[in-house]
Amino acid sequence: MADSPNCDLKSLSPLQLFERVTEQGEKVRALKAGKAPKDEIDAAVRMLLSLKLSYKTTTGQDYQAGLPPKDLVLINNGTTKEEDEDLVDPWNVQTSNAKGVDYDKLIVRFGSSKIDTDLINRIERATGQKPHHFLRRGIFFSHRDMDQVLDAYENKKPFYLYTGRGPSSQAMHVGHLIPFMFTKWLQEVFDVPLVIQLTDDEKYLWKDMTIEKAYEYARENAKDIIACGFDINKTFIFSDLDYLGTSAGFYKNIVKVQKHVTFNQVKGIFGFTDSDCIGKISFPAIQAAPSFSSSFPQIFNGKENIQCLIPCAIDQDPYFRMTRDVAPRIGQPKPALLHSVFFPALQGAQTKMSASDPNSSIFLTDTPKQIKTKINKHAFSGGRDTIEEHRKYGGNCDVDVSFMYLTFFLEDDDRLEQLKQAYTSGELLTGELKKVLIETMQPLVAAHQERRKQVTDEIVKQFMTPRKLAFEF
Amino acid sequence: MADSPNCDLKSLSPLQLFERVTEQGEKVRALKAGKAPKDEIDAAVRMLLSLKLSYKTTTGQDYQAGLPPKDLVLINNGTTKEEDEDLVDPWNVQTSNAKGVDYDKLIVRFGSSKIDTDLINRIERATGQKPHHFLRRGIFFSHRDMDQVLDAYENKKPFYLYTGRGPSSQAMHVGHLIPFMFTKWLQEVFDVPLVIQLTDDEKYLWKDMTIEKAYEYARENAKDIIACGFDINKTFIFSDLDYLGTSAGFYKNIVKVQKHVTFNQVKGIFGFTDSDCIGKISFPAIQAAPSFSSSFPQIFNGKENIQCLIPCAIDQDPYFRMTRDVAPRIGQPKPALLHSVFFPALQGAQTKMSASDPNSSIFLTDTPKQIKTKINKHAFSGGRDTIEEHRKYGGNCDVDVSFMYLTFFLEDDDRLEQLKQAYTSGELLTGELKKVLIETMQPLVAAHQERRKQVTDEIVKQFMTPRKLAFEF
Repeated sequence: MADSPNCDLKSLSPLQLFERVTEQGEKVRALKAGKAPKDEIDAAVRMLLSLKLSYKTTTGQDYQAGLPPKDLVLINNGTTKEEDEDLVDPWNVQTSNAKGVDYDKLIVRFGSSKIDTDLINRIERATGQKPHHFLRRGIFFSHRDMDQVLDAYENKKPFYLYTGRGPSSQAMHVGHLIPFMFTKWLQEVFDVPLVIQLTDDEKYLWKDMTIEKAYEYARENAKDIIACGFDINKTFIFSDLDYLGTSAGFYKNIVKVQKHVTFNQVKGIFGFTDSDCIGKISFPAIQAAPSFSSSFPQIFNGKENIQCLIPCAIDQDPYFRMTRDVAPRIGQPKPALLHSVFFPALQGAQTKMSASDPNSSIFLTDTPKQIKTKINKHAFSGGRDTIEEHRKYGGNCDVDVSFMYLTFFLEDDDRLEQLKQAYTSGELLTGELKKVLIETMQPLVAAHQERRKQVTDEIVKQFMTPRKLAFEF
Repeated sequence: MADSPNCDLKSLSPLQLFERVTEQGEKVRALKAGKAPKDEIDAAVRMLLSLKLSYKTTTGQDYQAGLPPKDLVLINNGTTKEEDEDLVDPWNVQTSNAKGVDYDKLIVRFGSSKIDTDLINRIERATGQKPHHFLRRGIFFSHRDMDQVLDAYENKKPFYLYTGRGPSSQAMHVGHLIPFMFTKWLQEVFDVPLVIQLTDDEKYLWKDMTIEKAYEYARENAKDIIACGFDINKTFIFSDLDYLGTSAGFYKNIVKVQKHVTFNQVKGIFGFTDSDCIGKISFPAIQAAPSFSSSFPQIFNGKENIQCLIPCAIDQDPYFRMTRDVAPRIGQPKPALLHSVFFPALQGAQTKMSASDPNSSIFLTDTPKQIKTKINKHAFSGGRDTIEEHRKYGGNCDVDVSFMYLTFFLEDDDRLEQLKQAYTSGELLTGELKKVLIETMQPLVAAHQERRKQVTDEIVKQFMTPRKLAFEF
């Protein structure tokens, strides 16, 4: 790094600045301890003060030793978040608001950008396709650098897609489909290749689970993902446990990221502690590395520095903020991102669905009868206590989980709007709204099951074999 | 882990016990914080006290939160070692004693066993070969479980050898040959396979070096290692950067080790800090994994749980103490070890040779003239200030580096004894002793250079190709 604090500080991220101040502080201490000449110490102190000033200008915060910049700390394990803030990190989503997480606040906290009408219109112009209802309805609501991706795309510089899943149980629920449904649409309208990471190593590290079990879940989950309809010629699905041992490029990128991220940083970003195992501590680099096309030499025919676009739920953003911080330091382009809201639990939008609570979710393995029972019994209602009151005052779509689910799965905009008005006015009762949801989800899940049945082990093997994808960069 | 503190505590290592106490302490705190029922808290506290007692009985130390057991701390970055103790860890060797490190003390501190006459005689009986002069002269002086390896070997259960090198520069010095010369002898007399790890990833992480450079050094170093005369049919040499991307088993063992070692542990063992990159923090698992035969499915034909024997310099022991601690918890046999002393710098035995100081070492690339000049100019002498005094009082072989080097490289026991007596009595002058060393080293280095010339890229490729080795387990 350059010695002058002025030449390039503006291009540094808050985290990089934090590290510079810390390093300079250590240097000053070392000089003093070593009884260095006074002018040398004075120069180092001046540099330290100048760095602290830059830090304050950039972050709006005073430098505090051992405490990384706040926008990174805010998303850690919750101890430093403010009282009324939602808790959002890769392992927890909690809010006290029945409408769910306040996403506008999250955009400000995370420093991402809102997906606004202009951007949606631009995507429509670039692809010549009507924007997906996840875009139209704000389900994918935030992004990083999507405009740059479009700039390049319009200049015939394509990109690749990267998304993933932590295979924590054999059965996936409908919420897990959201990023995959949207990614499939992106693959179709932009006609680009896609890599899908199954972090079986992460699940082994975090859960009480054998390696064999984690790998088995990965393969089972791959079937559900494939059943979403991805193009076999343009899609590579990989298990970390498997692919790390077959790729010449993946480990090299992992170790590059690992060299450029300190324990202090992952402590700030992910809330790791000294009691965490070293596998957890180094794992973020493994989720970062697929953002760089050189992790897939077979797929991209050895081409490097291809732009990556990551559609994911907003809780995965900490991994990719870290990745974007490291990317320029290892000579790689920063991945762009599209963030989705969370899929709410049947019991209400205060938390996202969880594969470990069978009643919080509609599973992709549920029968029509199970779906009906779960929705009728567990779907939190925004309706009134009595029919009379409901007719008089109407229901509240903002907190009604059945209505929320329909915004995800009912593609017909007009029908959805009608339902909203009828429910809000009191004309439509809770039971009737639930019936619409049941009739939407039953065929959707049944069709998924039908497609999944057709996914043979041979097809899984093809998707999971590293190979050149049908695309020229 | 079992809940009763009594059933299995005796089988736990100090480090495992330390972790148990820490966990139990956290449990007690959580119960108190959660206002759990009194009897539940009381039971947890009783368990905690019982665990602390076991810890004290086993380690002889009181449990202190955040401070792992002392035998592990002693070898960290020196801050906790006692005043008169030598500093020995994978990155530093320092002693104030001109005779070099006090190896008897090190055996006590590290908790290893001395290689005594009984063990040397047993090796002779088991192999039917005269023990290597490195054994006879105490150059390999310490071991862990070598008797178990011999028990099994005598019952026709063979083992495999594992050693390695961190390829930090293109040229190796003669000190680097010690473990390889001894390993070659072990391979010959026991007739067993051997894996040699080149930790190019470690060098990339620790040094200001590109990945490409680290890999290049690994391949160059492989040539020097091959020139030691290893059996191509029974030896596999691998670069981490390369092999991790080609092995189905290696990463799985790495992630298993990473799950079972905490940051607290590597902090205690290696002295890592919060400012260290996550690559360094997780690296110890990468040096640990080759201790398990399942890391090499191709080589051992998928056979697992084959006993491993690691010949290495004593400074590498921290890695393998950690490995031995983890092994039973991941269902693997503990690797056995044979430890060598350090090879002294030309300037004296206070420190080991370093590839980064050209004058501290005789390099394998040195010309006969360079060897002569270096020895004459830099080899620390145990002789007297004047010829008269030397004749009268004699020289001191204990601190004379030329004599030390001869104990490493002059195989003829009788000749060495003669030289010792002649030098000690004052009959032999420093210049004459140096001449013997020059005449020993010049042909040795020249012969190495000759053999190295014959190591073609094709031969390197063969050694570095994962393949079944010529041995049946």
